[in-house]
Amino acid sequence: MSSFKGNDGPETSSGRDEGEATLKFATWQSAVDEGFWHRLASLKLDTLQLAEHPIPVTGFFAPCSHPQVSSHVQLLLESLDNGQSRNNPADLLGNRNRVPISGMLYNTNTLEGFYSLDKQLLLKNTAQQIWHDIQSGRAAEDSRLLNRFLMISHADLKSWNFFYWFAFPAIKLPIPATSAPPKIASEVFDGNEGAGVLSACNHWRSVTPTMTHPFFLLHISVSGLVQAKPLSEWESVKLEGGKVIAAFYDPCHLPNNPGWPLRNLLAFAAIYWHVHTLQVICYRERRGQADLKQCIVFDVIIPQLPDWSDMSNVPEAIGWELNAFRKVGPRSVNLSSSMDPYKLASAAADLNLKLMRWRLLPSLDLPLLAASKCLLLGAGTLGCQVARGLIAWGVRHITFVDYGRVSMSNPVRQSLYTLDDCLNGGKPKAEAAAENLKKIFPGVHATGVKIGIPMPGHSVGKNEIPKLLEDLNQLKDLVHDHDVVFLLTDTRESRWLPTVLCADANKIAINAALGFDSYLVLRHGACPCPSNKTVGANSIRDEKESKEPDQNLKKQGLRLGCYFCNDVVAPVDSTANRSLDQQCTVTRPGLAPIAAALAVELAIGILHHPDGLYAPADQDIPVTATTDQPLGLLPHQIRGFLAHFAQLMVVGHAFNKCTACSATVVQEYRLQGVDFILKVLNEPNYLEDLTGLTEMLLATQSISLDWDENSEGTDSNPQSP
Amino acid sequence: MSSFKGNDGPETSSGRDEGEATLKFATWQSAVDEGFWHRLASLKLDTLQLAEHPIPVTGFFAPCSHPQVSSHVQLLLESLDNGQSRNNPADLLGNRNRVPISGMLYNTNTLEGFYSLDKQLLLKNTAQQIWHDIQSGRAAEDSRLLNRFLMISHADLKSWNFFYWFAFPAIKLPIPATSAPPKIASEVFDGNEGAGVLSACNHWRSVTPTMTHPFFLLHISVSGLVQAKPLSEWESVKLEGGKVIAAFYDPCHLPNNPGWPLRNLLAFAAIYWHVHTLQVICYRERRGQADLKQCIVFDVIIPQLPDWSDMSNVPEAIGWELNAFRKVGPRSVNLSSSMDPYKLASAAADLNLKLMRWRLLPSLDLPLLAASKCLLLGAGTLGCQVARGLIAWGVRHITFVDYGRVSMSNPVRQSLYTLDDCLNGGKPKAEAAAENLKKIFPGVHATGVKIGIPMPGHSVGKNEIPKLLEDLNQLKDLVHDHDVVFLLTDTRESRWLPTVLCADANKIAINAALGFDSYLVLRHGACPCPSNKTVGANSIRDEKESKEPDQNLKKQGLRLGCYFCNDVVAPVDSTANRSLDQQCTVTRPGLAPIAAALAVELAIGILHHPDGLYAPADQDIPVTATTDQPLGLLPHQIRGFLAHFAQLMVVGHAFNKCTACSATVVQEYRLQGVDFILKVLNEPNYLEDLTGLTEMLLATQSISLDWDENSEGTDSNPQSP
Repeated sequence: MSSFKGNDGPETSSGRDEGEATLKFATWQSAVDEGFWHRLASLKLDTLQLAEHPIPVTGFFAPCSHPQVSSHVQLLLESLDNGQSRNNPADLLGNRNRVPISGMLYNTNTLEGFYSLDKQLLLKNTAQQIWHDIQSGRAAEDSRLLNRFLMISHADLKSWNFFYWFAFPAIKLPIPATSAPPKIASEVFDGNEGAGVLSACNHWRSVTPTMTHPFFLLHISVSGLVQAKPLSEWESVKLEGGKVIAAFYDPCHLPNNPGWPLRNLLAFAAIYWHVHTLQVICYRERRGQADLKQCIVFDVIIPQLPDWSDMSNVPEAIGWELNAFRKVGPRSVNLSSSMDPYKLASAAADLNLKLMRWRLLPSLDLPLLAASKCLLLGAGTLGCQVARGLIAWGVRHITFVDYGRVSMSNPVRQSLYTLDDCLNGGKPKAEAAAENLKKIFPGVHATGVKIGIPMPGHSVGKNEIPKLLEDLNQLKDLVHDHDVVFLLTDTRESRWLPTVLCADANKIAINAALGFDSYLVLRHGACPCPSNKTVGANSIRDEKESKEPDQNLKKQGLRLGCYFCNDVVAPVDSTANRSLDQQCTVTRPGLAPIAAALAVELAIGILHHPDGLYAPADQDIPVTATTDQPLGLLPHQIRGFLAHFAQLMVVGHAFNKCTACSATVVQEYRLQGVDFILKVLNEPNYLEDLTGLTEMLLATQSISLDWDENSEGTDSNPQSP
Repeated sequence: MSSFKGNDGPETSSGRDEGEATLKFATWQSAVDEGFWHRLASLKLDTLQLAEHPIPVTGFFAPCSHPQVSSHVQLLLESLDNGQSRNNPADLLGNRNRVPISGMLYNTNTLEGFYSLDKQLLLKNTAQQIWHDIQSGRAAEDSRLLNRFLMISHADLKSWNFFYWFAFPAIKLPIPATSAPPKIASEVFDGNEGAGVLSACNHWRSVTPTMTHPFFLLHISVSGLVQAKPLSEWESVKLEGGKVIAAFYDPCHLPNNPGWPLRNLLAFAAIYWHVHTLQVICYRERRGQADLKQCIVFDVIIPQLPDWSDMSNVPEAIGWELNAFRKVGPRSVNLSSSMDPYKLASAAADLNLKLMRWRLLPSLDLPLLAASKCLLLGAGTLGCQVARGLIAWGVRHITFVDYGRVSMSNPVRQSLYTLDDCLNGGKPKAEAAAENLKKIFPGVHATGVKIGIPMPGHSVGKNEIPKLLEDLNQLKDLVHDHDVVFLLTDTRESRWLPTVLCADANKIAINAALGFDSYLVLRHGACPCPSNKTVGANSIRDEKESKEPDQNLKKQGLRLGCYFCNDVVAPVDSTANRSLDQQCTVTRPGLAPIAAALAVELAIGILHHPDGLYAPADQDIPVTATTDQPLGLLPHQIRGFLAHFAQLMVVGHAFNKCTACSATVVQEYRLQGVDFILKVLNEPNYLEDLTGLTEMLLATQSISLDWDENSEGTDSNPQSP
């Protein structure tokens, strides 16, 4: 299945001819392993990006070792050094069955670029390089330089289509070399001479310094001693007398034709040795040993050459490979069907993100995002959409917490569920969300945890305490084990405990809440009283947290507030006595996707900010002004008004009497632990008394009495007895 | 399985007692058909909403017709008149097997409300009504008034849990009535008398005027003639002499006890007839005929009553039904598992929307949205999210147009696909989107159409023309058949033809486009030159479109611009020569959900605006200001900047040289049809020449030459030769 090319252009008969005839060489054949394409794909996405410079690449071949099959130039995973991989350098040095052949890859950004490459020029440049290596004597020292290849490609990583074209540049002699028909080596070298040739070749092929050198000399001394020598010893063996035969690792299996490497060997002989006749043995093997029945021997006549030492007189080159249809043209391969769909999905999921780094956001820290663990409290309208946003940004660890089951009214608004999840009473929400997220992207580590969040004002009976403690501990552990906590539940009071836990553990907390046509997205400030014991062992923010907390807090200026900082009453049970429209989150459908998207963008912004959790709140600037951070501004709160198509950035500082994030509350939680939580749940006024809100409200009340003596002062104080 | 209650409170023995004993009555039993709950659910959602006023409801029963089974009071679908339904009035009048019993339903908004209803008071009020009907003589005229019931309920339509409790109010005599053990009627009335009783009863039960009156008299004249008479004839038959027996349709099957209706009959006899003894027959049937072997006869002794004409001396009432555990308490039923999941899903999908109408957005026109047909051009990141937003708003007709297949990189950003859709080369996108939308909400009419959108600058060869014509016609028909068209494709030029088609057909066109971190959502203006022929036959906007177009256009002031109105060059092939990051829509993941949500909200706003497509563009107002329209402002364009968390409302007026929506283009399209499109596709300068842009640009160029003689004037003009 080889193709032939005469030196003189169009092919003539390739049949056996008893007289001298133009030599016809079997072309190289390329074979690209899937591993190579995968390596190229990641190199392109991660390192090269938009760069189009040529990339060194190493092919591998071996002498033909099968009577019916030529050996190919193979491109393997290790053919490309992607800089990040732990390529064993020995891989590129090759071995007897992987003789390296060095190449250069031109990978273009576009298919149009691929087609418009000047292929003739590329080929000529490489041929010139070979010519220079011959003239300079470097090829005589290292015969591997005579075998080179070129590859052009375009990798369409969206469809996993790879277009490529190989060239094996050969210097074209001005007048083709001729030869009588070849003889089988076993007929040329018989008896002792044959045994000597076998032994010399097998030795050359088995010792490390020579095995990967595909061109060599066989010297048969006058005394009949046969030795294999490097090309550089031509002059000395010539002086010794006897026979000198040039040998090369021949990939070709054909009985009457040499393989492509002979072309550059003949050019070398003509230019460097200035010979006009040369006996050549096409070295071939069988079962790992030289096989003289396969090797063929040519007596080649090389015509007179022009003076190539003149640089203007550069030889012509040929060598672009034909495609599978034996036509001049590129090949293509589509890997999408043969790839493991799960791996393919992972690669594809990263595609858009890696592309983002090429041009628009080079500072995007994908490894950071892939390592960040996100805890989503609530797997409803917001939770589903936040999870989708996170995986789109490359976050790979997501845990859902929800106590409910998927109900029939959920799928139209909660974007991770379908009707199937609602049947037979509904699947547990957290688990269904995790399961369905994996159906979208199997590379995500998603988990669903069904626990209820203890809530102030929802008092607990004695027999409920064991379950409550279990939930509480699990929630605490979850907060500690994650890096970002999203508060996405549907009541105000269910956000209280997570706020306390995040403040205690000094975690990034992102809060999204919906009204009917307005939304609030905010990030909580850092812990008011950081403690070493609370730094989670798994936190990717350890480094930053270990800095002096005071120093960190200073960065933020006034500490940023939490969801409860604006409130002067503690959270209570808001679910009691609600009619259906108050139980269901009745919001304009557009609200949740917007708020969820902003919550995710805010989280990504914090993770990328050099000060992380301590990043100060940015104020708004004109949209035409550039932002300090590549990802843009990092606000504290975003408030949106859908009926006005308006969105505002708001800064709210921490309130020292806050019922959730104040130092008083965090310290009391650290001191009393579970007992503190139980008091909050069961004693309506406990939090307000503790934080001093009660006192403050009483003071406010007496002031209002002073100001307006006719008003019913007690009405304005919901805590009065 | 009946329960007994003596008039004197706690039960004593119910065994046969040969002497006079307190009468023990078998209580009514309720049975609620699922249809009733469905009717109640829709009544609540659509009509009652938050209202808690009592609702008239009609139960149905029949005399007992089985020796072992008492008959129930049944509540059926038609028991509730929801105002919208075509209830056959005959349904409520009942028939011999559906004797109506009128009731009052108190349905509460919350479960707490349900439990806190004053059940004793409700019961007493109903008993008083019966008492008044007796005293006034109305019950004598219409004996149906003696049977009444009460029902309290709470419908949790999120989980399809219904809580309910029936009461069958009975006036409690101050001293219980007594009787000797009953006799079987066939023993009391033998021979001719028995035949007469049978015949009289069967007649009463078979003729329309009397069959649904559950109380009557049997008069056996001195001559032995038996006649059934209404209660009002008591005095006259008494005067005639002979025997008078009071009869009632007895739901009870027990051989020794009368059913519950006898209670109010005895009260009636005591109050209205002032009798102290009464012979009563418990009328029961078998196979649709009176059966004297089942009927039992009591000789009741009614103790002396106080003077009830004094209003302050109101009788006590009893009658709350026991629950299935024979305890005092409500019952509940959960229908979610027994309901057809598809119907349940439809009901649930509407839940949030109907709840929105209760309080926040009473003007929300759900039938309009359900009838509006939306065409989504592009089923990618934006298309998927727009479709989700639309079904959440109650839109029920969605058609996707996309030419592509679902690829591995899609699911993480395109919210209607999962990995399964990518396998084996990927499903056609439009079809997969439609299919998956139905999995979310089976009630949606979703269709996927795989056609390519012809694009300017993407020239077509001769052999491609038949396919192009087919695509073009299909697209044109689709635009005509839909009410709102969303332009959500990923290139500028693919929006051109849809813009022209929407302008021609005068359809609402919503355009959403993404940059890397900015978005644009806009609605196109109306057609510059409306034509009657272009009004789609299926358009729900026919009425508005049929108004004088000029008048409509005036409303908008200056006509609003389209996506191309800002451009001074015609769209060209932007896909040629793009590197991977330019081929894929590389955007911040938060962008598409936000832009898609805004596109949907904008569409919903237009559909609700009294001027629809012709609504003028609102300018921004403070977020605290109320908006004219209940849904809020209706901007022309919304431009968002994610890095600045900013969003602006922009108004852009139509450009009279616009290459897509100008009168010149629309008229030329109407004139030339397909030929026009072909010219645009194949001739790069055609559109610019046609609209006068070329001329304008040349003029601009000469001006700029005047101003800056050193600059290379031709560079600023991409159309110069």
